[in-house]
Order: sequence, then structure tokens, then C-alpha cells
Amino acid sequence: MGLTSEDQIFERPGAGRDRDARPVSFQVEPGRYRHWQLAVGGPVATLAMDVDEHGGLQDGYELKMNSYDLGVDIELYDAVQRLRFEHPEVRTVVLTSAKDKIFCAGANIRMLAAAPHAWKVNFCKFTNETRGGIEDASANSGQAYLAALNGTASGGGYELALACEHIMLIDDRSSVVSLPELPLLGVLPGTGGLTRVVDKRHVRRDLADYFATRPEGLGGPKAAAWKLVDEVAPRPAWDQAVAARAAELGTRSGRPASAPGIALTPLDKRREDDQIRYRYVSAALDYRAGTATITIAGPDGDPPAGPAGILAEGAAFWTLALTRELDDLILDLRTNELELGTWVIKTAGAAARVLAYDRLLREHRDDWLANEIVLYLKRTLKRLDVTSRSLIALIEPGSCFAGSLLELALAADRTFMLSGAFEDIDPDAEPAAMTVGPMNLGPLPMGNGQTRLQTRFSGDDAALAAATEAAGRPLDAAAAEGLGLVTFAPDDIDWDDEVRIAVEERASFSPDALTGLEANYRFAGPETMETKIFGRLTAWQNWIFNRPNASGPDGALRRFGTGQRAHFDRKRV
Amino acid sequence: MGLTSEDQIFERPGAGRDRDARPVSFQVEPGRYRHWQLAVGGPVATLAMDVDEHGGLQDGYELKMNSYDLGVDIELYDAVQRLRFEHPEVRTVVLTSAKDKIFCAGANIRMLAAAPHAWKVNFCKFTNETRGGIEDASANSGQAYLAALNGTASGGGYELALACEHIMLIDDRSSVVSLPELPLLGVLPGTGGLTRVVDKRHVRRDLADYFATRPEGLGGPKAAAWKLVDEVAPRPAWDQAVAARAAELGTRSGRPASAPGIALTPLDKRREDDQIRYRYVSAALDYRAGTATITIAGPDGDPPAGPAGILAEGAAFWTLALTRELDDLILDLRTNELELGTWVIKTAGAAARVLAYDRLLREHRDDWLANEIVLYLKRTLKRLDVTSRSLIALIEPGSCFAGSLLELALAADRTFMLSGAFEDIDPDAEPAAMTVGPMNLGPLPMGNGQTRLQTRFSGDDAALAAATEAAGRPLDAAAAEGLGLVTFAPDDIDWDDEVRIAVEERASFSPDALTGLEANYRFAGPETMETKIFGRLTAWQNWIFNRPNASGPDGALRRFGTGQRAHFDRKRV
Repeated sequence: MGLTSEDQIFERPGAGRDRDARPVSFQVEPGRYRHWQLAVGGPVATLAMDVDEHGGLQDGYELKMNSYDLGVDIELYDAVQRLRFEHPEVRTVVLTSAKDKIFCAGANIRMLAAAPHAWKVNFCKFTNETRGGIEDASANSGQAYLAALNGTASGGGYELALACEHIMLIDDRSSVVSLPELPLLGVLPGTGGLTRVVDKRHVRRDLADYFATRPEGLGGPKAAAWKLVDEVAPRPAWDQAVAARAAELGTRSGRPASAPGIALTPLDKRREDDQIRYRYVSAALDYRAGTATITIAGPDGDPPAGPAGILAEGAAFWTLALTRELDDLILDLRTNELELGTWVIKTAGAAARVLAYDRLLREHRDDWLANEIVLYLKRTLKRLDVTSRSLIALIEPGSCFAGSLLELALAADRTFMLSGAFEDIDPDAEPAAMTVGPMNLGPLPMGNGQTRLQTRFSGDDAALAAATEAAGRPLDAAAAEGLGLVTFAPDDIDWDDEVRIAVEERASFSPDALTGLEANYRFAGPETMETKIFGRLTAWQNWIFNRPNASGPDGALRRFGTGQRAHFDRKRV
Repeated sequence: MGLTSEDQIFERPGAGRDRDARPVSFQVEPGRYRHWQLAVGGPVATLAMDVDEHGGLQDGYELKMNSYDLGVDIELYDAVQRLRFEHPEVRTVVLTSAKDKIFCAGANIRMLAAAPHAWKVNFCKFTNETRGGIEDASANSGQAYLAALNGTASGGGYELALACEHIMLIDDRSSVVSLPELPLLGVLPGTGGLTRVVDKRHVRRDLADYFATRPEGLGGPKAAAWKLVDEVAPRPAWDQAVAARAAELGTRSGRPASAPGIALTPLDKRREDDQIRYRYVSAALDYRAGTATITIAGPDGDPPAGPAGILAEGAAFWTLALTRELDDLILDLRTNELELGTWVIKTAGAAARVLAYDRLLREHRDDWLANEIVLYLKRTLKRLDVTSRSLIALIEPGSCFAGSLLELALAADRTFMLSGAFEDIDPDAEPAAMTVGPMNLGPLPMGNGQTRLQTRFSGDDAALAAATEAAGRPLDAAAAEGLGLVTFAPDDIDWDDEVRIAVEERASFSPDALTGLEANYRFAGPETMETKIFGRLTAWQNWIFNRPNASGPDGALRRFGTGQRAHFDRKRV
């Protein structure tokens, strides 16, 4: 059987304004789920995978055996987010399957085989991020994920289980966990599987090696003895064992027993010509220059009073609203605007108000909702860190790079800050300022476990101390440059040229080399399991995805299911 | 101008016995250097790069401006090794150029443009290893490297300087350091440059970003202010400043003031049909199965008495002899035998003697030569860790996997240990045993800073403690399996089938996917600058090397110097 060609299945918008294909949307809600059943009742929620075979995001493949594509993952991400914000009472999420004998067969192979390289990379990145979010819920939000594998979990299905705090496998002499990617497809279990097996679950590396070359997987007590799962239970005892474990996991949680959640109402997002607009976030797309200029507006007024005020505002609360908008924009641009290689980041508003919102969240970190908002902002900024676009921050008069919004500048590859004012716009304008705040000193760490300031001043403790000591004071360009908080601080006369040259130069370089450069420079200092997944594992997987042995016409990914063996170039590289 | 095609320049031996191309040899000696001048006199040695334009390893390119290819690097590696063993009196190595106004222009671009992917990857790996060896000399051997950049150091030339403990740059208004790979070639500074700039020299990431996109580089006081170099000196003061710094670096060394070195005499290496034989190491190559079976023989007798005995034996001392042989074999097989994807590792000899040699070295670690031998074994085992071949260790009766040689089994992806004896060979043979020794508990760390035992039992302190506690006792298969020191322990009846299936399976898998799998599983636990270079940075570089934007006919690497601009697919991935 032949595969549908890439072009037929994966029409993506190209550069320019004429588009045939509809862009991928990341906005969904439980009422529109095609692939998941979400049941919430008290402290235990059940999220059951029930993939609609005919509900693929593209035509040309069928999502059999609970295999997934990006569309399935978008719903999963939505469910994970809503469980945190809309259901404070949920302490354990049981992740299971609504189908018999199969938990999840992993990413759909025909989809992967037909997908262009960039699609595969983006898809895996988003999948990784959602799994990181599941771990973040278990670790920081008191919402533990229990993988209840009521059937076989293979490939990405097992990798999804690996992101859960506890894995149970039904012991029925047929259900197994497996990582068959290498023997069957010639690629890696690339969404965290290899790293989590040895670095999270501490499976011995030689056993892990054997496991990952054994397409038939392992089940029963041996899977538990090798630490691939935490426990097994026979079918007659299954429901009771899962319920008991879910209850037990819930006892560790500090989430409120009875608090109302907030509704994640639909985003007000508009696309007009080459502008994308939300309430606080907007983006101007320039296809000729290859840029998206993203502007984030500060709060319209003072923050509400205390946790009750945050709860009352709900999804309209400034920090939450802008985080949701920024999250959606990052995913939209990443997936739908591949040729906009540089994102120029600006802010507009009053720094004092940003800091006031920050202060409110910091002071009430013990409130479940304030905590969730900070964690969500943290995850969204991490998304920026692993985005393969050059990030240039522009700090101009009227901007509000302070505290939480200063993180955007600290995440950027380069930062320009205007010295003085724009003489021909408003010569009397207050010069640009930036302010380091408490949000820059701990609550929003990168994937490497360090703050962006720590990473910036990696190995230079004096510079880090000086920047920390400056917290709370508005810093003009000279002060910020002196502290090493901006890259360049040109004045009005040089500003336009310097910025233009930087943006034009960036557009002239090899996009691939920029991706590699940024993936290395953004993560100075220590590595964690998370950065190993996004750096080491992902880079090797991307290399393999690009090689004829996997993706060529005779490669394993293309030949799978055809009855023909893959043809490999046997040179070891 | 057109480039000579890959096939013309880079004929490598293929699989099978008929070969046209001569294999690359890694054996050289100062009298045969074409590209380096080594001057030793007292505590300061000078290693001056003076590349012979017409001395390229292949035809088809000229090594202008002190640009290098693998042949230049092989001589550098030899010099670094000899300085350590033959010149204990040398405390500072001044690495400089014998040419005017240029230190080194980096890897030769025409060579890179024409080289097949596997060649580029192997070349960069070896270059990285030599640079790691330079850092090891500075850190652990009291032999500091001083980069005296008497002219421009660009690309790999600057990366070579980055491996030195101290970098001086001549301040003459024209000499600069630069990383022009990204803007000029569409690839990364891929031999440690990106990682060392931010993780070793602690250049701020945004300045590092700017630097790596600026082909004209930076010189003078600004290069020092940005921490790209440690100091600059004007031409009139240059010689004196370098001499003063070299003397100062030497004062930190604990190397003996006047001790004789040992001669690294030529290896006795023979190739007969598909056998490679040295004194203690041999390899049987099987092109049909795609395997090399490597056997390492233990010592012939007891070790000599004390440091004087080691010195008297010199290059014939067992540990040093086998390390040199294994080092050469690894490089030979990696470079010349790309299709032998699995290395089967065996040992033969008396474990007690291996442990006696280990003990001698451990007890005299304060002796410069004993120290050098252990450090060399450490580096050679690290080479095995980053080798893109599947490693399978077989522990059979008559083997001597103990202490330093047990590291070979611990480095393997899988280990098989025979339970009992081979009934049809020698039913009365002493069953196979392995012994954990002090050499497994610290002196031979991997690149991640952990011992192979720590990495094996990453996150399982009890298992690590049990294996450590067993040190000194010969362990039979059941005991070794119980302690988690071997993967499988089949008996005589199952042995042949189990081993055969494992080897055949390995040969059937995608070579690329195996490389990715092993690169991830071998480095459980923490990451270091070194593992970041071999994991994160190298994986991204390999991906980029494989992409049309770099290596395609219109890619930047191919188009460089043709007057034509590269054509890039602008999609960011």
C-alpha cells in the first residue's frame, strides 16, 4: 500500500498572504473533544483516551488503536490545563483508556511517515511540553497523575505513562509496555522515553537497552521488577486497585477540598490581514522581513485585592489572560508560520502595575489559583525558551519590562534598549526603563532549574549579585547596560539602523544553524532531565528523523506496514 | 570553481575485503610531523602550528592559513600525548603559530564541504577528544596549555584556543578571535565552541550570540572585556608577556622538575586478512556479520616493583601498552570500518594480575607516570563511551574482567556472562568470574563526572552500595547477575543462541537509531560541559550537517568561496 504524499496530507501555510490550507488551532474545549473522555467527580478525575479513528487532524491516516496525532494532543493539553484551573478539588487524575486491551499505541505511524520534517519536530516538541506540564502538575500543583494502563502502552503511549507520577499495568498475560520505535521504525522513542526510563525511573541502562530493542515489550511482574511500571494488578482486582491508589495519591495533595474553580473562557482572538490580536497580546506578521513583532500590554489598572479578587476576575485576571494569549500565540506561530524566523518582542504599559500584579501573586503563593497562574506563566516562558525562532527584545519608552514581563527580555537572544527618547516621536518622553522584581529571582525558573538571571550570569556570581541587588529600582539604559541586563543600548540616532541590521542579518542566516546556536546558548549551566529531553534526546531524534534510514523512501518509517523491509545504509555515524 | 566530488576525495574502505583506499593511520611521531613544530627545553614547551598547505590527508584541497584536516589533528594528538609521557619536565605548553598574522583558520572548509557526513562526524569527534585531552592535561597532569594567539584564531582555531587554560591575543589592530561558522557556512562552531564560550569562559549568552554571528570577530581589549580571551598584549611586548605568563602558569604545577620521561615507541600492529593484532589487543573483523570481536589480554606476569619499575618498563608496562593499543584500535575501527556496527568485547587472562597492576598504579598515584597512565586509560575508556558502535561484552571462562578491565564491560550496552562452563570445550574449567576493584570506584570517571558503576546504578543507591561492598571478591555469574553487574547470565545450553540473536538483532536495526539510543542511555545522571559538548552540541551539529541548508548542493558549506550565495529553505525547525 502506498502512502499519501506529504504535500497532500500536510499542507501548511507558506509565506505570504495567499493560503489554501487552514491553520492549526490550539483552542478547544471539553464539549468538542473527539478523542478524550473527561469525568470529574470529587478528588479523583478520570481522563480516558478514546481516539476517534476518523478524527485525524489531516486526512490520509486513521488513528487506530488509540494512536494519536497533533489533534489528539491538543485536546490532552486542554484537559490538563482545565483540570488545574477549573477543578481545584481534583487531587488525582487517572489517565486511562476507554478502549479494550489497548491503552495507547503511540504517535500514529502513517502520520509520522507522511509528515514533513518540521511537522514532526514541532509535533514532538508540543507533545514533550504537555508531558512536562503533567509532571509539573504532580510536582507543584498537588494534582497527581496516575497512569492506569488497562491495556498495552506502546511507544508514545508508554512515554505518556512515563510522565505520570505512578504507573499501574494490568496483569492479564497480554498487556505490556514497550518502546518499539527503534526496532520497528528506525527512530527513537523521542518524546522523553529514553531519558525518563533511565533518569526518572532509574531503569538500569543495559536493561533499558534491551527493553528498547524488544518490540513485543514487557508485561506482568517483570515490568515491575525492572521498574518500567510501579505495580501490576490482575483484571479482577484492577478497578479496586486503581481506585485505592488514586485515593492514596490524593492524600499527599495540598489542594483545597472544596473551592470553586475558574472557567477558562474562549480567547478573544482575531486575525485581520497580517495582524493577530488578543486582549493583551498582539502580533504583526511581516512575511517579507520574516518577522513577527509581538507586543504585550501591561495591566489596564491596579490589581484586585487578594485571592478573592483574583478568583472573581478569573480568566480575565491580567496575568492569566496574557499568559493564555501568549501561550496560544507561541503555538500558533510555531506551527503555522514556519518562515517567520525572528520574533521581535515589545511591551507597552506601566511597569508599576506589572509589579503590583506580580506582588499580589507572590504574596498569595499559598492560594491554589495564584499558584496555578505563576506555574502557568513559568511553563509558557519555558515554551519560549525551546522555540526555534530568534528572539529579539526591544525596550523602548512606554514599555513595561518589569518583573514577570522582564522575563521576556531575559529569554531573548538579544536585547536592545533605547538610551534617551525618540526625538522625532516624543522628545519629552520618559526614557525607557526596566525593573528587576521578585518574579525574576525564583518563581519562574527555566527548564535547567535556574532563573533566567542565573543562566544569564552563569559563572559570574558578582554580576548576578549586582543585578539582584538592583531589584525594585527602575533602571535606565545606561544602568541596565552597566549591569549586563541588555545587550546593546543605542541612542535615537543609532537605534533604527542597529535594530534593522540585527533583524535583517538574522533573516539572512541559515535557519537550521540558528536553531542549533540558540538551543545551545540558551541553556548555559547545569542540565536537568527536562533539558536533556529538549537538548540531547530531541537533537538526536531530529538528526535521525532527517536521515534516509528513517525518512527516506526506503527508510523504516516509510516502509512500516508495507510488508517490505527497510533498506539501511549500514555505516555507523 | 567546482568542488571535487566526495567520492574522489574521500574514498573510504567499504565493507568486505576488497579495498582500494588506504586506511587512515593514527600512528605518527614528531620526526614525521608535517604541520607542527614541537620545541621542548625545560619547563616550557612550544607547540607551533605550521600547516603544510600541500599536506592534506586527501587530495582536492589546500590547507591554507593554518586550516586543518584530520591529518593535522592526528599530529596534534600525538604531540599532546608525547608531551605528557616523554616530557615530565614540561609544565607549560605554549600553543602558537609559526605563521605570520594567522594563528589558525579552523577546519578546512573545502575539506568539510566535500566530506561525507560520517567523515565530518568522526573528524569532529576526534577533534573534540583531543581538546578534551588538552583540558585534562591542564586539570589533572600539571601541564597547562597557554594559547598564544599571535594572529587571528577563527572557527576551529578559536575553539582550539578555548580548550587551553589561558588565552592571550596579540593586540595589533588586525588579529581577532571569531566563530564565523554560522554566518559564513551555515553550520555551528561544533567542536566545543558554543559550549565552552558560555559554560567555561562564562561569556554572557547574548554577547556570545552576537559574537557567533559576526564573521569579522573581535580583537583587542574588547575581546578581553567580553571574556573571549584572558589578556591581550601589543606586538612589542608580546614575546615577553607570553614568556612571563608561561612561567607563571608553570609555578602551579606539581610535575617533577627533573625526571626522565618514557619513549612512546611505535606500536607493534599487524593486519593479516581480517585480523588486527597488537601485543595485548586483537580484533577479528567479520564483514558479513558486521562485527569486530575485540580481545584484550591480561598481563603476562606480576607487575614490577614501584614507580621505578613502571618507569623501567616504560611503554611496555602492561596497562600503558594495552591502553595505547586499545586507543589506536578504537580510532582505526571508527574511521576505517564504518560498517562494523557492533563491537564484541572479550578479555583473556588472570584477574589477579590485572588487579595487581591496578593496585600498583593506585598506590603510586602521586608518581607522575602512574598518574599519566591512569589518566590515559580514563580518556581511552571515554572514547569508548562516545563511540557510535554497539558494545557487547562477553564474560566467559578464562576471562579477566576485573578492575580496570571490568570498565570495558561496564561501558558496554549489554553484558552476557556464562553460568558454569562450556561443556563441550572444557567442562572442568573454572567458571567465569568478574571482580569489582578500586579502579571501578573513582579513578576512571566517565565524561559525566560519574564512575561507570554510579552511572549504571544512577538513582539506586542501594544497588551501588551493594556492588561497591562486593569489591575484591570474584563474583560468579549468579552473584554478578544478582548485583546487577551483568545483563544476562545464560548457561552453556542457551549461551550461543542468546549471544547470536543479540548480535544479529543489533545488525538488523537502523544504525542511526542505535547511535541515538546509545548516546542517550550511556549518559544517565548529571551532565557536564564535556557531556554537553558530546551530547547536546554534537547532536545539533550532526543534524545541521545533514540538512540541505548546509550540505546540499546549494547549501552554505558547498557554496562558500564560489561567489554564489547559499540558498536556504527558510522554514525554522
